[in-house]
Amino acid sequence: MENWELIIIGAGAAGLAAGIYGARSGLKTLILDEKMAGGAASDAPVVENYPGFPQISGGELTQKMVLHCKKAGATIHEIETVTALDFTGERKIVKTNRAEYETIAVIIATGSHYREIGVKGEQEFRGRGVSYCGICDGPFFKGKRVLVIGGGNSAATTTLYLSGIAAEVVVTHRRDAFRAEDALVKDIASKKNVQVFWNTEVKEIKGEKLVNKVVLYHNKAGETKEIAVDAVFVQIGEAPNSQIAREADLEVDEHGYIKTDVFQRTSVAGVYAAGDVSSHPVKQVGTAVGQGITAALEAYSYIRRPYYRT
Amino acid sequence: MENWELIIIGAGAAGLAAGIYGARSGLKTLILDEKMAGGAASDAPVVENYPGFPQISGGELTQKMVLHCKKAGATIHEIETVTALDFTGERKIVKTNRAEYETIAVIIATGSHYREIGVKGEQEFRGRGVSYCGICDGPFFKGKRVLVIGGGNSAATTTLYLSGIAAEVVVTHRRDAFRAEDALVKDIASKKNVQVFWNTEVKEIKGEKLVNKVVLYHNKAGETKEIAVDAVFVQIGEAPNSQIAREADLEVDEHGYIKTDVFQRTSVAGVYAAGDVSSHPVKQVGTAVGQGITAALEAYSYIRRPYYRT
Repeated sequence: MENWELIIIGAGAAGLAAGIYGARSGLKTLILDEKMAGGAASDAPVVENYPGFPQISGGELTQKMVLHCKKAGATIHEIETVTALDFTGERKIVKTNRAEYETIAVIIATGSHYREIGVKGEQEFRGRGVSYCGICDGPFFKGKRVLVIGGGNSAATTTLYLSGIAAEVVVTHRRDAFRAEDALVKDIASKKNVQVFWNTEVKEIKGEKLVNKVVLYHNKAGETKEIAVDAVFVQIGEAPNSQIAREADLEVDEHGYIKTDVFQRTSVAGVYAAGDVSSHPVKQVGTAVGQGITAALEAYSYIRRPYYRT
Repeated sequence: MENWELIIIGAGAAGLAAGIYGARSGLKTLILDEKMAGGAASDAPVVENYPGFPQISGGELTQKMVLHCKKAGATIHEIETVTALDFTGERKIVKTNRAEYETIAVIIATGSHYREIGVKGEQEFRGRGVSYCGICDGPFFKGKRVLVIGGGNSAATTTLYLSGIAAEVVVTHRRDAFRAEDALVKDIASKKNVQVFWNTEVKEIKGEKLVNKVVLYHNKAGETKEIAVDAVFVQIGEAPNSQIAREADLEVDEHGYIKTDVFQRTSVAGVYAAGDVSSHPVKQVGTAVGQGITAALEAYSYIRRPYYRT
């Protein structure tokens, strides 16, 4: 069984920041990710609010962090899935689909996944017109008419991105105002090929081989209508990837996010959580980075017990 | 009296991150700094641990943040000193040496200042060989012998920076090991012109017009000796710039840092603190950024009371 001092689960912004600090502090640091390194931010068409980069694609930003983390000396294993955690002994056990590791401390930075709208047709047409990632699937719909569901920053940036590719973008939001940043809302208002349907919910996604229409419900007027669209981009928020943490008996809040204190400590000594999976109220690249740093420095104190933290 | 929605005091990493988010959220945002914008990080010879920039000078990094913040739409007033805060009314009053402002919310991001060693000669030779900033004053000592006091990351990066300028760098640390990151400690070990005196305290700084020697005390052997140096760089940590906050009756902890919760809220509604002046246990550029973002989004909720935060 391989031995490490610090294992970080998840190579998104939080995990990579933790990796930079863990490795620079001299800890033997391994980062595991079930996908490619980069995390949720790598799907963002554009990031304009990570301080230091006025405008950068999410993919480019997270690749800079990946290179930074490797340069700092952390080892990153991609496409390796953690299947179980055992925190009952003095040393922690991390089992994956490829190996079993022993470590002193663990940082859980597994992020969140896209929330589904839960309507008829959503599962059936997944990958055939139903998507949760504009930058991944948008280019398939050049010159087409696409729908974006949601009203937050993710929905807004996806809308702006798709407006440059699709012929027409329809946005449906169940409320009568966006919760996205003003700067994004203004950009949307300036796009001639974007139309917003307020107080509108998608009730069904229809098609044959591929999506070709949606059923819309106006929740003030109480009216239903069908419109033709070639794709549906669902952008209504996230839910935490905390299942393996819950199975290892870490405390979570009422929405399933891992409970953390100001040091990013969880309910188990030597185990930390950072980024979107943690209970911190703000979910941004810049806050994930701050939490990853805090978790790594706290893990360092736990592992090395240096003189200045007695 | 000028009206603003959000006034941020301090244009360091925390204040600039808050400014980016405040302005992008559509708030009329003013940032005040008694010096030039950039904050403490702009004095760092090199920053290797802000995720996304494997190696960048502190000045360059903070200038990127300043430009980012201006592009986002925040107004920055440099060389304007806040002299008093009045948080007793519904709207907050911020008085400076130039004007008086009314605002709905305030974020205090005033950072910290260099701690002094408190020995004879320190005040007398300040600016004449005694310095608290390697990048500011190091170039004056090309080819000379300089002393660095301290054992943390600031002392280590200053030592490395000075080793490329001075003929010889002596480091004194009152402990027998550095608390700096391993990566920095290894770099120091590889420098032929750096000598470290462990368990050693500087008891006096001497000179004529300029510094020319220091009195060292070995705290294990109990012995005292004098060595010749041309400059003394004090790098023993920081204390919070919280005086105006304390005068406005904000709660501070036992070291004077402004008490904040997970939303960066202080003891007064509508007033937030972020970065080195806040009670958060970690003081890094990346954590200051995360706190600034959190404070700005919380201030936004306080000011606009949007539908999703009722």
